[in-house]
Amino acid sequence: MENKTISAGFKSKKLTAVPRGFRTFITSAGIKDNTLDLGIVVSDVPAAAAAVFTRNQVKGNPVLVGMKHIKGSKISAVVVNSKNSNVATGKQGYDDCVRICNAIASEAGFLPTRVFPSSTGVIGRRIPVEKIIAAIKGFRQRLKNPADFEGFAQAIMTTDTFPKFAMRKVGKATIVGVAKGSGMIEPNMATMLSYFFTDAKISGTALDKLLQSTVQSTFNSLSVDTDTSTSDTVLVMANGLAGEVNAKAFAKAFQEIALELTRMLARDGEGATKLFTVTVKDCANPKQAKAIAKSIVNSPLVKTAIYKGDPNWGRIFMAIGKTPVVKVIPEKIKIRWGGKSYTNDQLPQLAKYLQKNEELELEVSMGTGKSAWTVYGCDYTEEYVKINAYYTT
Amino acid sequence: MENKTISAGFKSKKLTAVPRGFRTFITSAGIKDNTLDLGIVVSDVPAAAAAVFTRNQVKGNPVLVGMKHIKGSKISAVVVNSKNSNVATGKQGYDDCVRICNAIASEAGFLPTRVFPSSTGVIGRRIPVEKIIAAIKGFRQRLKNPADFEGFAQAIMTTDTFPKFAMRKVGKATIVGVAKGSGMIEPNMATMLSYFFTDAKISGTALDKLLQSTVQSTFNSLSVDTDTSTSDTVLVMANGLAGEVNAKAFAKAFQEIALELTRMLARDGEGATKLFTVTVKDCANPKQAKAIAKSIVNSPLVKTAIYKGDPNWGRIFMAIGKTPVVKVIPEKIKIRWGGKSYTNDQLPQLAKYLQKNEELELEVSMGTGKSAWTVYGCDYTEEYVKINAYYTT
Repeated sequence: MENKTISAGFKSKKLTAVPRGFRTFITSAGIKDNTLDLGIVVSDVPAAAAAVFTRNQVKGNPVLVGMKHIKGSKISAVVVNSKNSNVATGKQGYDDCVRICNAIASEAGFLPTRVFPSSTGVIGRRIPVEKIIAAIKGFRQRLKNPADFEGFAQAIMTTDTFPKFAMRKVGKATIVGVAKGSGMIEPNMATMLSYFFTDAKISGTALDKLLQSTVQSTFNSLSVDTDTSTSDTVLVMANGLAGEVNAKAFAKAFQEIALELTRMLARDGEGATKLFTVTVKDCANPKQAKAIAKSIVNSPLVKTAIYKGDPNWGRIFMAIGKTPVVKVIPEKIKIRWGGKSYTNDQLPQLAKYLQKNEELELEVSMGTGKSAWTVYGCDYTEEYVKINAYYTT
Repeated sequence: MENKTISAGFKSKKLTAVPRGFRTFITSAGIKDNTLDLGIVVSDVPAAAAAVFTRNQVKGNPVLVGMKHIKGSKISAVVVNSKNSNVATGKQGYDDCVRICNAIASEAGFLPTRVFPSSTGVIGRRIPVEKIIAAIKGFRQRLKNPADFEGFAQAIMTTDTFPKFAMRKVGKATIVGVAKGSGMIEPNMATMLSYFFTDAKISGTALDKLLQSTVQSTFNSLSVDTDTSTSDTVLVMANGLAGEVNAKAFAKAFQEIALELTRMLARDGEGATKLFTVTVKDCANPKQAKAIAKSIVNSPLVKTAIYKGDPNWGRIFMAIGKTPVVKVIPEKIKIRWGGKSYTNDQLPQLAKYLQKNEELELEVSMGTGKSAWTVYGCDYTEEYVKINAYYTT
């Protein structure tokens, strides 16, 4: 696992503040073994909430339940387990998820529809619901206050190599974001889960609008391996205890946290050794720019080339040209790496740039307009194959 | 390279007949070193011809020239070089390609527009046109008759691990198909080149129709790594010297050769250890069936799972569900491997099936209609990463 040395600059910085009115509970329910596999966050007062979910049409049961509960708008608790995703488990799995929500609600004294569930792990096996309900029993007396979000981030990890969290202060309020994903010890998909907690006062409608616009340029611009999890979820809860804050400042802080987490998720992609950011600019419209950038960041031949520093810019051209629908004028394309363009005579210098940097920045100018888009990915290594091929569930 | 042991059943069978009236020339032009890098096939009489080309919008100069020449309908010679693809080389590269066609035409005494060029290799470097023209000089006196198509297949290989050819007899006529692709020692893309030669008498229009319909279920249903080459080309030449043949029998034989070559290309995919065929059936329409099958065959998590035999059917569900646009009803999906369905209790047996077979057959029933489609791919291995990451051009 020598590949997995990640510089401190890419990892989470200690939280110097947390939003008031949130409490956390972390435990091992013994879903598969005795490691941490369950985390709960409770808000002292019902929180305004918004969420976005996976676009995969095969959705996990917790996603289906969460989609229903978020419609009630206010959320009081989020419960997350690892080791079993409760996906493709039918009506039984749906009922199991509802039972877990009920157990939390009856312990804590609020409506079951105010519990937001997530699960990540292997697909197609029944979740051990009795074990989880037993682990939940009495959790209310053991809630940590102030909330231990660093511990929560740790508890929901699978093969993430470090816990992922970030924070910003906005006036008297604080926003904390937590994320997991991109590597798993046992299960099988890079489920991306992310949660934002804030004590700012902001309506569910405003939160929803902010979340929808933020995910486009952050989480939805992230790709580790082109595979879309059946459990992906981003949730934001605002309990209002710090009062109202400047909306613009809040949006900016929220966007910054989302981007910070997105970059961590990309850098910690399965087997990855590099963060790879691709910006396509001077393009006809943002949709085309994103499509081209995704085609580059997802190309196995580009991802392998940057892994060991093959200065093979032909593969970039190939990836641009294969983008569906988009109009490409090959003669107008200009490529820059880390802000610099390289001629065929300077390929050794380009190889050096690729080899020595842990973050690679590719900029492609299409010459067809004025729009731009940036996406976040990583390189493709033997370790990715090993992580996903050798471990048999 | 232990992974690359390929059973004889997947390789080319010796050609027991060749179409009359074709001659071949094979040499090393020294484009990069002294290995074979140039092959020419000449028809004694102008041949009816049809071709399909890469959909990549960044097209190689030989593709651009070939698209123009094929419009004249009759083709007398095809010239193929490896080690340099003459892509992204601008007007200079286009002129270089035309000069090569001119040199062949003036040696052989026919119009330059009757020469069909192909190149495969590294992108973005000027092709050494003087070396190629020197190698062509006097080739007419050295043409082999009858044509040595096995040698031609060998000459256009890059890191293919075996030459790829197949034949069928149709009445008095013979069809030979030759293909290369999926592995390269030096260059950087799995350029797929395929050529069909026949002495059957058939019009260019009929050939074109047949080729268009055949490629859909064969070459266009093949995916090694989702990357679309800038040089992909399939050409068919019919010189008519064996007279007319039954059209249905010809179409069937043509389709069979195309499928045989497609399966060889998939099995010999870069670093591959298995041929992976995916059939999606009981689907709303063929387009949806193909989209779902491609989503499965291209999923890195599915491709790594089958490599070492992880019986992880959840990844298949994930790949089905992420297919864009297509309507999926998760409850109706049924999966069979090698004609058999496996329950969660039978996962060890499924692991065994995956591990011991060199060809894996996955069948997915969608329960949404009556259409089906089959695609051809391979597994994802550490060797794929090694082939594409470590070699620096």
